[in-house]
Amino acid sequence: MQEKALNSPGFEIDPDLVITLTHGDPIMFEPFWKEEGHNATVTISGWEKMSYYACDPDDICWFLEPDFANEVLRLHRIVNNAATNGSHIIPGAGSTQLIHATLHALASIEARRHPVNVVSAAPYYSMYSDINSLKSALYHWAGDAATFKGGDNFIEIVCSPNNPDGMIRHAVLSNNAGRRVHDMAYYWPHYTPMRGPADHNIMLFTMSKATGHAGTRIGWALVKDTDVAREMVNYITLNTNGVSRDSQVRAARILKVISDGYEFPNSNGAGQFFHIGRHLLADRWRRLRQAMEVLGKFSLPRFSTEFCEFFKEHAQTYPGFAWLRSEDESINDCGDFFKGINVQIRNGRLFGAGPNYVRISLMGSDAYFDGFIKRITSVG
Amino acid sequence: MQEKALNSPGFEIDPDLVITLTHGDPIMFEPFWKEEGHNATVTISGWEKMSYYACDPDDICWFLEPDFANEVLRLHRIVNNAATNGSHIIPGAGSTQLIHATLHALASIEARRHPVNVVSAAPYYSMYSDINSLKSALYHWAGDAATFKGGDNFIEIVCSPNNPDGMIRHAVLSNNAGRRVHDMAYYWPHYTPMRGPADHNIMLFTMSKATGHAGTRIGWALVKDTDVAREMVNYITLNTNGVSRDSQVRAARILKVISDGYEFPNSNGAGQFFHIGRHLLADRWRRLRQAMEVLGKFSLPRFSTEFCEFFKEHAQTYPGFAWLRSEDESINDCGDFFKGINVQIRNGRLFGAGPNYVRISLMGSDAYFDGFIKRITSVG
Repeated sequence: MQEKALNSPGFEIDPDLVITLTHGDPIMFEPFWKEEGHNATVTISGWEKMSYYACDPDDICWFLEPDFANEVLRLHRIVNNAATNGSHIIPGAGSTQLIHATLHALASIEARRHPVNVVSAAPYYSMYSDINSLKSALYHWAGDAATFKGGDNFIEIVCSPNNPDGMIRHAVLSNNAGRRVHDMAYYWPHYTPMRGPADHNIMLFTMSKATGHAGTRIGWALVKDTDVAREMVNYITLNTNGVSRDSQVRAARILKVISDGYEFPNSNGAGQFFHIGRHLLADRWRRLRQAMEVLGKFSLPRFSTEFCEFFKEHAQTYPGFAWLRSEDESINDCGDFFKGINVQIRNGRLFGAGPNYVRISLMGSDAYFDGFIKRITSVG
Repeated sequence: MQEKALNSPGFEIDPDLVITLTHGDPIMFEPFWKEEGHNATVTISGWEKMSYYACDPDDICWFLEPDFANEVLRLHRIVNNAATNGSHIIPGAGSTQLIHATLHALASIEARRHPVNVVSAAPYYSMYSDINSLKSALYHWAGDAATFKGGDNFIEIVCSPNNPDGMIRHAVLSNNAGRRVHDMAYYWPHYTPMRGPADHNIMLFTMSKATGHAGTRIGWALVKDTDVAREMVNYITLNTNGVSRDSQVRAARILKVISDGYEFPNSNGAGQFFHIGRHLLADRWRRLRQAMEVLGKFSLPRFSTEFCEFFKEHAQTYPGFAWLRSEDESINDCGDFFKGINVQIRNGRLFGAGPNYVRISLMGSDAYFDGFIKRITSVG
């Protein structure tokens, strides 16, 4: 596997090789899972999990693996990042499918003008604008929530901490109908200080960003309203007729390892995922800030220190992405600059910002990150 | 697990219990996989398959596990049920997602009037008509292909062998633009004699019906046209950002066991899935035909014996569903009759036929099937 080589210690990438920092592919957490060894291994026999149904067919969410649900609730209890009381848990094929399921549900359950406008404050996660390509007759992307002028026919997506810029976000539009989706993919202690349990009507989480397991395609929604939950389940039933039971079983195992690391800690502190994840991210941010200072062309967001209720100390913010702003008037399009040094980034325009912004992923392999810092430093 | 109890030898269901024969939940193959034991077990370490990418990110289908692709090709070669030369393999979350991906692709790649009409000859798989609930602006369900009067603005789905009635099907509409999807879920030797490799532009298969692993949510498309393949990948990228890598790994293992059973057979013939699957289905059909004869109210489809190129002998057809027609004038709605004996079926109306038809699944647990035969016999 290509990624395996890129993540091997001492592996150096060729100066001509394109370094891809476009996607939030969370390879950086791989070494933690290697350390965990067989603790985190999942084994499924050929005769297990054959049925479509993961629980009672009459349950609202007939495709939810009970073990997965239990481990989701357990981890939220330990981290205390989300209120779960009375919420329905709905697994999805990543938060991608859950966003579609949520928009479908919210746009379906009330009689209203279709398509409903979907908005989010800029800079917003570029994937939100991609929903138009799926050509739903129920909803379409309508851009920056801050400049939206379409009356009350909208759904606002609030991503907090925000992708791409890591900021804590609140809804910008008043919304009596409660048509809000909170994308909480990054509200975990390795990325940001925990400010107590988030408590919104619809909250989305994903393995990809919580634990680094993007390939499982497993996310989950916490949904308070039963009608919304039913409609989301209906969407997933029609769309994929359930969600991989194998991946839910694996996700349950992975979440269990993290929870066990805190509920039954080793004396040496090994196996504490959020501590180790924060350490890795802190190191990358330190090196990134240093390299950017030497380069002198871009600024990085500044975050104030906050008390983290999980680490029980004042803590920094270390987003999985860096949101760079050009401070050099000779650079009209940051994309051109990075192209010049063979680094693929995502242009600010995709996030509803200008070409003077770019997003780079900090979650990739060591080789890519090291290579990136080396290139930045060599042109600085 | 409820299904586990229902499938245990000697387990008898209560006379008041509702017997559910609505879904094609393929529990009947569970005993085969129990016999296989650890051969069919999959093990995935915590650090494996973390990336979004299952192969080279620049491949057309970046989420295709190479092992899964190899085992798909290998099994098609052994069974000789589908031409694969030069086709793209696209995994999906079951054939359900692949149907959406295909319709999206075919409706997108040519400029044409939207929504495109999706048709299939009655009786048709009830799921096809469900596509309307997802409210795509690109396509919508338009019913029976045989009575379609909408010019050339259509896509025809051809299901062969057909769900619900098990018949071998050909397209009924002439279609110069080649906008056809062949749903081949049941073109495997346990269900129907193999008449040589099918060779269509877009063919869909699914683990659920091939091996009984519905819970993996893994199917695959064989697609000849590269533009169509790209558009299908694009749909799956936007919809679920790939397909569970864990389930693809498991599916590869399951397919390997079946292929090994034929390429490296034991002297006792154990482990030959299609032989054992055919035997199980033949037994159920024998008991069903017998019970229905005693009851004297319904007729079952009759299939002519054909030479099966896989078994190298003349073979019968044993569909996974039975399509019953009422022959009793006192029964206006078959649904009422089955409700009266506490058996849930799917009404013929859902398949574009009359209420004088019902579909019952023959793929469920032993306990459900035995209980069904017992009830039928007791009212006969």
